[in-house]
Amino acid sequence: MIRIIVDCYGGDHSPQAQVEGAIAALREHDDLCLVLTGDEAELRSILDGQGTYDRDRISVVHAPQVIGCNEKPTDAIRLKKDSSMMSAVRLLREDDDIAGLVSCGSTGALVAASMLRIGRVPGVIRPAFCPILPTMAGGIVGICDTGANVDITPDHLVQYAVMGSLYLQKVYGIAEPRVALLNIGVEAEKGDDLRRRAYPLLQQTPGIRFVGNMESRDLLSGNYDLVVTDGFAGNVLVKSAEGTCLEMLKKLKKDICSRTLYKLGALLMSRMFKEEKAFMNYQNYGGSVMLGCAKVVVKGHGSSRASAVARCIDQCYRMKREQLSEGIEQAIAHCPTEQSASQNEAPATVG
Amino acid sequence: MIRIIVDCYGGDHSPQAQVEGAIAALREHDDLCLVLTGDEAELRSILDGQGTYDRDRISVVHAPQVIGCNEKPTDAIRLKKDSSMMSAVRLLREDDDIAGLVSCGSTGALVAASMLRIGRVPGVIRPAFCPILPTMAGGIVGICDTGANVDITPDHLVQYAVMGSLYLQKVYGIAEPRVALLNIGVEAEKGDDLRRRAYPLLQQTPGIRFVGNMESRDLLSGNYDLVVTDGFAGNVLVKSAEGTCLEMLKKLKKDICSRTLYKLGALLMSRMFKEEKAFMNYQNYGGSVMLGCAKVVVKGHGSSRASAVARCIDQCYRMKREQLSEGIEQAIAHCPTEQSASQNEAPATVG
Repeated sequence: MIRIIVDCYGGDHSPQAQVEGAIAALREHDDLCLVLTGDEAELRSILDGQGTYDRDRISVVHAPQVIGCNEKPTDAIRLKKDSSMMSAVRLLREDDDIAGLVSCGSTGALVAASMLRIGRVPGVIRPAFCPILPTMAGGIVGICDTGANVDITPDHLVQYAVMGSLYLQKVYGIAEPRVALLNIGVEAEKGDDLRRRAYPLLQQTPGIRFVGNMESRDLLSGNYDLVVTDGFAGNVLVKSAEGTCLEMLKKLKKDICSRTLYKLGALLMSRMFKEEKAFMNYQNYGGSVMLGCAKVVVKGHGSSRASAVARCIDQCYRMKREQLSEGIEQAIAHCPTEQSASQNEAPATVG
Repeated sequence: MIRIIVDCYGGDHSPQAQVEGAIAALREHDDLCLVLTGDEAELRSILDGQGTYDRDRISVVHAPQVIGCNEKPTDAIRLKKDSSMMSAVRLLREDDDIAGLVSCGSTGALVAASMLRIGRVPGVIRPAFCPILPTMAGGIVGICDTGANVDITPDHLVQYAVMGSLYLQKVYGIAEPRVALLNIGVEAEKGDDLRRRAYPLLQQTPGIRFVGNMESRDLLSGNYDLVVTDGFAGNVLVKSAEGTCLEMLKKLKKDICSRTLYKLGALLMSRMFKEEKAFMNYQNYGGSVMLGCAKVVVKGHGSSRASAVARCIDQCYRMKREQLSEGIEQAIAHCPTEQSASQNEAPATVG
């Protein structure tokens, strides 16, 4: 039996979407048990309206407080111990039988609480955040890290490459993920000190398919499966792509509404625009995971509906079933580090 | 008389677009003189076909080599001394009467040559690259820096804010440009060490309107006039926005072509799509300038047509006419630095 916690508050459609998503996931997997955290009375009343499902595989833990998305993460962790999210993190930490946690609440609070409370897979320097975006070629691309760590070394980037590759293999079935280093040019000598030192180290890393540097303009090209980067640039990259998509769709909509002729044209294309919108909706590609955490943490989008929540639970379930953490632990043990690489290069000094 | 050099090679439509753009600019400004660099015979033959214009205000300097956009900048500078770009840079450096240079050639080579050969406005630590993008609100936004300097201090960011503000005031007529610091969250304490140290310094900088941190998703929102950032994150930001726009338009086009019904709809909207395309075309917003160079350097887009080249020349002309360099020199003298700020804060120690 795989046990997963669902933080039922903090999202735009909480707690309705979370409860419905949980029931959908439960129906999908026979060996799944779910624990919901949040206001017990409210959750039970929503559960009562869900028709038939295996009631033995779902339980509720009362946690009346809610963390807002604009609260300072450190304050939220310290002051809202009875929130649905912090109760979920506490349960995850304390109960050895629980495999993972899904939350659509504050990203900052979830990342901070996971880093501080859950611990790391042995050998991992720091867990990192890895969202998935759709590419224009119809596939996906993972980006690691997008904000968990802003001051890093080349050793971090090597671990991101290894963890992200395993994640894409085990959860998305990509056999040999093409890993690229985000840079400001494709040549090996491009970029700042961090990138120039990371490049040769990534070339030496066993078990990954490192294809070199990539520029941000190629993020959605479909030429890469995983982009590794520091959390600052990764955050800029992902939010810039998302923001541009949203702003463009907004402008298109506004322009279409400006003339009847355009509205008529858009009417003929309504099915296409609908598909376009679904395609751009990152909800449909699963949540962002904290790679390298001792237990599985999946962050769903704040605007997640029930189907997106179910997808995040499924993602969490597959990470546990495929033993991602164990795989990461084994692979990390064989990662080169700057120190090991420099020792290998040093001439023998035995007298 | 304002004298400007036009590097006529290295662009996608060189040298035809450069020559035609030069003639257009010449007709626009009576007090403009242009020097064209490149293959003299070819340039003269194109000039001969341009109808009537004031031939006394245009001259040609023979420079037969061309720098390709994939050549390593340092090699290009060292080995292609007779290229149209390096001849232009040499002229700019040596001739006191020449105010600026417009080139649509290799960005890397132009930035490197400007940094190494042209020198800085007194007080400027390092010149920085500042492109302009259209916002979805119909205005523009400048981003400084996008790749000239990847390892920087808070003092650099303060200078970018001052130089960029003056540039937007003098060349684009924005009275009080809203300056934002690119970060991974809007709160003052967000980001890495560089951002946290730069924030209070930007608050103390006289003559700029600092509005705080911004996230990359808001780049095109129209809420900011100038974004200051290190060259690495700035490069990621701009190329990610451009790349996403291009990939989206490509996908839209492909999807429209997939069904006759959509093609019909698009036909009704053809004027809108045309306007959309012109709007997204960054050629229409002028070139990127190297702020803080002792002389004006404008980099036009590689795909520039004649009108875009003329616009870059006009931009260069206005920067000289409005005495941007002199303004920058005066403003930089009043910039706080980390050192001056810490001295102001230190308690008096006079015994």
